[in-house]
Amino acid sequence: MSDAAPSGRRGRSARRERRQSGPAGQAVPYISRNIPNYDVLSEEGVERIEANADRILAEIGLEFREDPEVLEIWKDAGAEVDGERVRFPKGMLREILKTAPSQFTQHARNSARNVEIGGNNLVFAPVYGPPFVTDLDQGRRYGTIEDFRNFVKLAYMSPWLHHSGGTVCEPVDLPVNKRHFDMVYSHIKYSDKPFMGSVTAPERAEDSVKMAQIAFGEEFVDQNCVMIQLINANSPLVFDSTMLGALKVYARHNQACIVSPFILAGAMSPVTVAGTLSQVLAEAMAGCALTQLIRPGAPVVFGAFVSSISMQSGAPTFGSPEGSLLLNGAAKLARRLKLPFRSGGSFTASKLPDAQSAQESAQTILATLHSGVNFALHSAGWLEGGLCSSYEKFVMDADQLGMMHVLAKGIEISEETLAMDALQEVGPGGHFLGAAHTQRNFEAAFYRSAIADNNSYEQWLADGELDSAARANSRWKEMLRSYSGPELDPGIDDALQAYITERKASFPDSNV
Amino acid sequence: MSDAAPSGRRGRSARRERRQSGPAGQAVPYISRNIPNYDVLSEEGVERIEANADRILAEIGLEFREDPEVLEIWKDAGAEVDGERVRFPKGMLREILKTAPSQFTQHARNSARNVEIGGNNLVFAPVYGPPFVTDLDQGRRYGTIEDFRNFVKLAYMSPWLHHSGGTVCEPVDLPVNKRHFDMVYSHIKYSDKPFMGSVTAPERAEDSVKMAQIAFGEEFVDQNCVMIQLINANSPLVFDSTMLGALKVYARHNQACIVSPFILAGAMSPVTVAGTLSQVLAEAMAGCALTQLIRPGAPVVFGAFVSSISMQSGAPTFGSPEGSLLLNGAAKLARRLKLPFRSGGSFTASKLPDAQSAQESAQTILATLHSGVNFALHSAGWLEGGLCSSYEKFVMDADQLGMMHVLAKGIEISEETLAMDALQEVGPGGHFLGAAHTQRNFEAAFYRSAIADNNSYEQWLADGELDSAARANSRWKEMLRSYSGPELDPGIDDALQAYITERKASFPDSNV
Repeated sequence: MSDAAPSGRRGRSARRERRQSGPAGQAVPYISRNIPNYDVLSEEGVERIEANADRILAEIGLEFREDPEVLEIWKDAGAEVDGERVRFPKGMLREILKTAPSQFTQHARNSARNVEIGGNNLVFAPVYGPPFVTDLDQGRRYGTIEDFRNFVKLAYMSPWLHHSGGTVCEPVDLPVNKRHFDMVYSHIKYSDKPFMGSVTAPERAEDSVKMAQIAFGEEFVDQNCVMIQLINANSPLVFDSTMLGALKVYARHNQACIVSPFILAGAMSPVTVAGTLSQVLAEAMAGCALTQLIRPGAPVVFGAFVSSISMQSGAPTFGSPEGSLLLNGAAKLARRLKLPFRSGGSFTASKLPDAQSAQESAQTILATLHSGVNFALHSAGWLEGGLCSSYEKFVMDADQLGMMHVLAKGIEISEETLAMDALQEVGPGGHFLGAAHTQRNFEAAFYRSAIADNNSYEQWLADGELDSAARANSRWKEMLRSYSGPELDPGIDDALQAYITERKASFPDSNV
Repeated sequence: MSDAAPSGRRGRSARRERRQSGPAGQAVPYISRNIPNYDVLSEEGVERIEANADRILAEIGLEFREDPEVLEIWKDAGAEVDGERVRFPKGMLREILKTAPSQFTQHARNSARNVEIGGNNLVFAPVYGPPFVTDLDQGRRYGTIEDFRNFVKLAYMSPWLHHSGGTVCEPVDLPVNKRHFDMVYSHIKYSDKPFMGSVTAPERAEDSVKMAQIAFGEEFVDQNCVMIQLINANSPLVFDSTMLGALKVYARHNQACIVSPFILAGAMSPVTVAGTLSQVLAEAMAGCALTQLIRPGAPVVFGAFVSSISMQSGAPTFGSPEGSLLLNGAAKLARRLKLPFRSGGSFTASKLPDAQSAQESAQTILATLHSGVNFALHSAGWLEGGLCSSYEKFVMDADQLGMMHVLAKGIEISEETLAMDALQEVGPGGHFLGAAHTQRNFEAAFYRSAIADNNSYEQWLADGELDSAARANSRWKEMLRSYSGPELDPGIDDALQAYITERKASFPDSNV
């Protein structure tokens, strides 16, 4: 993991680290795709979905629950408000969305780790939200703040994760109404990558902003995005007061909201891809537009957390082909609105870091890369449909993200890569290992997996017949053992701790 | 697996089978992609690779070893022949390739299972070539003819494999010089899907053709493709006499050759993607053109078996990102030659049906689908870089192929799929499970995996905490238990057996 460590190290240990994590040049603060987006939807198809969404918005409308202020905002903007139901005249939301930036910078406290969200860029962030954690040694249990810190450290150390994320697991050992302090603090303290704020209550959002102001400075935060937040729609066609409250806080402070319909098709949307996409578009447009009414120009991301359910058991399914099609279609819809797009990750319904988990995650992460996703939450660590953060899965997924970096570069064409000198030197029947061209290029040539075993069967037997989960188990423990954190200005650290102590003392613990 | 069985079954057992294998309508003899091809290479990039290949052909040339007849054919066609080295004036091979069909039908003995090779079609065939087999019960051992028959039966029963393949494993219990009889017979007897003939010696190729003539009729075989064969180049830039001998037999009999550079980049080609693609194009053009000189219009497929090696250990790697880029680029090169394209499959270097195997296979099979591959050998059962056929991996891969069928359909846009009636019926905050639209559409709505476990953690615990390999173990045994073969005309069966008996008696066993 040399690339996450301070530069300037030399010699054998730096070379050994390069061998493990790939050539130093491969670590980047985010992916800039050098490959085209893949679009499954035709122009005609996308236009019919857009027309369908316009009808949903105008004829059915959305509900904005228990938030009179938001209803007032919509009324003032020209929407038709009937109780909590809001209907939108055709074209109204598209007009409002014109003030939203198509790309923005999320600043990290280490500016070398700033990420660009939008355009042809792709940012990988870890798993978000699981109450449980698991590893091969201790098995499945509720997450704690120690687990939380561990996942922050693992994301910090991986050259393939660009972002520290948010609720990498729920620290269930802390009271619900105070754990946001420890979560935000851990992101700032144990990593210098960009991170996410709390959305579970408006006052927790305000606390998150306040802590960001301590870390980045008040004026800087007002003028720049330093946090990105996950605002889920309560699909179908509802936004609830918790999410609206958080959205308002962050938009007012110029911090980014990811407005994400959270949909399991068949239950929370129609059982078809085209119908679900229509609903996704309607919900995302309404939520994204609301941020622009609160603060025009505030960064906002079109989100889509979309999968399906088993129509036999009702269980959610992840990494399904329908999920990939939904992701691909939603990406196209977001691009046409000129909004950054969040979706994808390393989804699976599996309970183990087994073949099912890998197959479903690979299917999702490849769709993520090729569909043009800009911000991919849940890129590492997901198990059980998001109920469990897995240590082994985390490093297995991170390895897969490294492969996505290679795919995103596409095929480089130059005199050097065309390699005519190698072909001439070697000729028919020869081999290329010793060719001068190979010697010049082999170090950066191929992705080096930290998990895969490519050895012979005999060598693999001699190495203990480990499967990839067992190798991942060694890997994450080795990473945590060698963790060395980024420096944090002691004045900022003290101020953060003082703020947390004071705020925690000001109200009683509660698990609501 | 109802879709491989005779139609007409009704009632509870047919419904149960539909539930397991997906709706009956999903089984098709091959995939016709309703989605665009994904191209990583730009026009300029592909033109530079083509120019590079032209230089390789003209300046370096290829060797055609120990086959004076082939050298004579090249000389007559206008190539520059120097010993066994053959150089090709620019444009010569492209001109010769104009007689090759861009798409052709491979006939199966059950015409409902005929496959179209080329165009926007994709045919999945099983693993080819492993000397070893493995399953969770018996572990890894040499393959036998019983294993061979088992894999033929599994491919026959899966609705997602379109082809019976060739050497699904090596039946090492039979003499090398006679096992082709039993392999070809097993494909004809235990399946009615299309299959592949022997290429390990010209006389074994002749035996394969003879057996096809018994099964299909002599004149039919002369006028139609009933077998497809794998002809590997001995990369770099060599074709050996064994492969040339088989190529000549099949081309003369109007049977399809897949001319495949077999390349591990870094060892058998330059260490770069662009250099490797240049070599692939040169080798494939030369081999494919040779078939047209032997019989203009004979079906031929541009093949590319391309992966990379670990530049640290020298071990072959599979399912790598570079492998996906090579596959994607080669597909584009084949399309520009208007030739059908073979590549891809479910590659992995793993020794187990674990997460590594699933991740690498998923990465390859998705590249296979999206790059425009027409014939995908090794689509099910591969482990250990192709050294081992796995029973569990076979059914896990087949399940993944089912998902590819869904992705290939793309996103259907119609009044019914746009589902406005469902959205209007349900409205904000409702749920769709009971909607009339859901009731009309749920049966065919989502892919149903035969392997994935989407249940809750608690249910999964109660079900025995199985990983996907363990579920696959039950699955293949259940499939073999319920195997019921297609009928074979007793006259044909007797004639095949008589031919085999006579031929086997005519020369001594040998393991060369």
